[in-house]
Amino acid sequence: MYSVNEFQRIYQKILPYIRITPLLESQHLSRHIQGHVLVKAESLQITGAFKLRGALHRLMSLPSSVKTKGIIAYSSGNFAAGLAAAGQITNIPVTIVMPADAPKVKLSNARYYGAKVIECKSSFPSREEAACNMARALSKQSGGQLLHPFDDIELSKGQATVGLEICQQIEQQKRAMTDWLLCPFGGGSLATGCAMVVSALSVPVRVCSIEPESYNGMELSINAKKIQRAQGNMATSCDALMARSPGSSLFPVAMSTGIKGISVSERYIATAITLAFDELKLILEPSGAIGIAALLQYPELFKEQSVTLIASGGNVDQNTYQQCLAMPVP
Amino acid sequence: MYSVNEFQRIYQKILPYIRITPLLESQHLSRHIQGHVLVKAESLQITGAFKLRGALHRLMSLPSSVKTKGIIAYSSGNFAAGLAAAGQITNIPVTIVMPADAPKVKLSNARYYGAKVIECKSSFPSREEAACNMARALSKQSGGQLLHPFDDIELSKGQATVGLEICQQIEQQKRAMTDWLLCPFGGGSLATGCAMVVSALSVPVRVCSIEPESYNGMELSINAKKIQRAQGNMATSCDALMARSPGSSLFPVAMSTGIKGISVSERYIATAITLAFDELKLILEPSGAIGIAALLQYPELFKEQSVTLIASGGNVDQNTYQQCLAMPVP
Repeated sequence: MYSVNEFQRIYQKILPYIRITPLLESQHLSRHIQGHVLVKAESLQITGAFKLRGALHRLMSLPSSVKTKGIIAYSSGNFAAGLAAAGQITNIPVTIVMPADAPKVKLSNARYYGAKVIECKSSFPSREEAACNMARALSKQSGGQLLHPFDDIELSKGQATVGLEICQQIEQQKRAMTDWLLCPFGGGSLATGCAMVVSALSVPVRVCSIEPESYNGMELSINAKKIQRAQGNMATSCDALMARSPGSSLFPVAMSTGIKGISVSERYIATAITLAFDELKLILEPSGAIGIAALLQYPELFKEQSVTLIASGGNVDQNTYQQCLAMPVP
Repeated sequence: MYSVNEFQRIYQKILPYIRITPLLESQHLSRHIQGHVLVKAESLQITGAFKLRGALHRLMSLPSSVKTKGIIAYSSGNFAAGLAAAGQITNIPVTIVMPADAPKVKLSNARYYGAKVIECKSSFPSREEAACNMARALSKQSGGQLLHPFDDIELSKGQATVGLEICQQIEQQKRAMTDWLLCPFGGGSLATGCAMVVSALSVPVRVCSIEPESYNGMELSINAKKIQRAQGNMATSCDALMARSPGSSLFPVAMSTGIKGISVSERYIATAITLAFDELKLILEPSGAIGIAALLQYPELFKEQSVTLIASGGNVDQNTYQQCLAMPVP
């Protein structure tokens, strides 16, 4: 595995360009689990999501021959904005294929930060795979290097800085180390990164991946001890967590670090967004609120424990947000 | 005036009980004024507003004879929650009279933090004054000490810690000191506190008070060089900024430190809330968004300058919030 020094080096390298986001105590969630809950507000990260961290590290590590030809990627949204902003910072041209039905705020975010955005209307065999195929073709055409949005261990090491920052903040705030670290799980770059960094730090923190129930590829894969593909046959509001399987380069790392996997029903997600509105004054997108939803759905699983959850993003369209606030509490 | 040491002492005293809130750069607002804009997100303070700071300092400074009899206060909302939480921390019983039409989130917040809340239905001669009269009568009856929600220099010294924290963060972030510090202005405890602390620090920061246009008591008073009463004859969404005149004990301090006063049209406030949603992922109440509204309305006033604005609170009912997001941009 990797050393603490390596994560520290990556963190110091990207630190001038990112925000140290706040770690906020939630009284409501603490009472709910009769324990102690901290919320890491990566929704307040530049570009509105943690993805900037990994993208910055990834682009900064490229050989200069690759940098001049530019980067081709595909993304359901937050990686697009993070990569666009990272491209702006490192002066590397970025082209991104995004599903045409991605939230408008995510499409406009990627363009705002200077990326060339190509919308992909196909969703065959899935919206992620269609975008991937389009990006692959573009990369062949232009010679630009293709970046995977999550299945890339270097990317994951950049996302790991969220976990590193949390551990530092817990120390600064003179709190006891957290028992659980809850990570929204799409393809796995965040959860795997966090699992690697807590392992390197030798802190007794257990990482738990949280997925929407019909996109629970990681939960299924953990149980089967090999990569499985989720059904994806039910609608989810978590547009950032619709990958069907964990990244194949990440899954072995996730297994060796003992990540636990759970999945959450859709009806708890709107309540989680409302709780973040009411108590924390944070705007969370559905995917960013899934950690809160996990505590709402499974209080007994975390009873009397200390939990830190990563509120990973806040890029949600106004209409979707208003619908979530208007949903009845389950 | 007061020394830096005094503000530092107050800050260190309350620091274990408050959050250090983030200071976030806004690219959109920076472009809008062709300058540089930082947003101090006190909406993320515990209780959802900066008022906890002053309330904590005020209660901690009370003689013990007063502490046992408890505190009576009146408030349009955020001071209520701040005082309630401060009472919980210092173990002092708190009774608060609030206007019955205060936002529901503010009424429930004060109760959540353990205060006894009495709703005042009268708005004669104004909702603030009716609540004040009721609190005064209660104080006579019970012997509990009456606290004013803003016209109290000790309270103001506690709110000053927002300004102190901003200056420290600007230094930590290795930024140039800000030219302007924009403070929402109700009765003046925040702006006066900030003016005192930047004066004590001898930094070249000019404090500017921002009011809703029909509640511009401070702007009128600055121009007349004596306390004036605003008309208050137009509706405003800024329920926390409806005091008609600056506090009489604060106004001389405000004058001697050279606070500038401006007022903002209602139509820019909803746009400010939407900008905070879209770019910053912060939930702001109308009163908390008035600094952003000032930059939207008067870009030429701050052109090419560096500005820090205090986003003072995020306690807004869901309905009001949804209406603000749905308003057309002016």
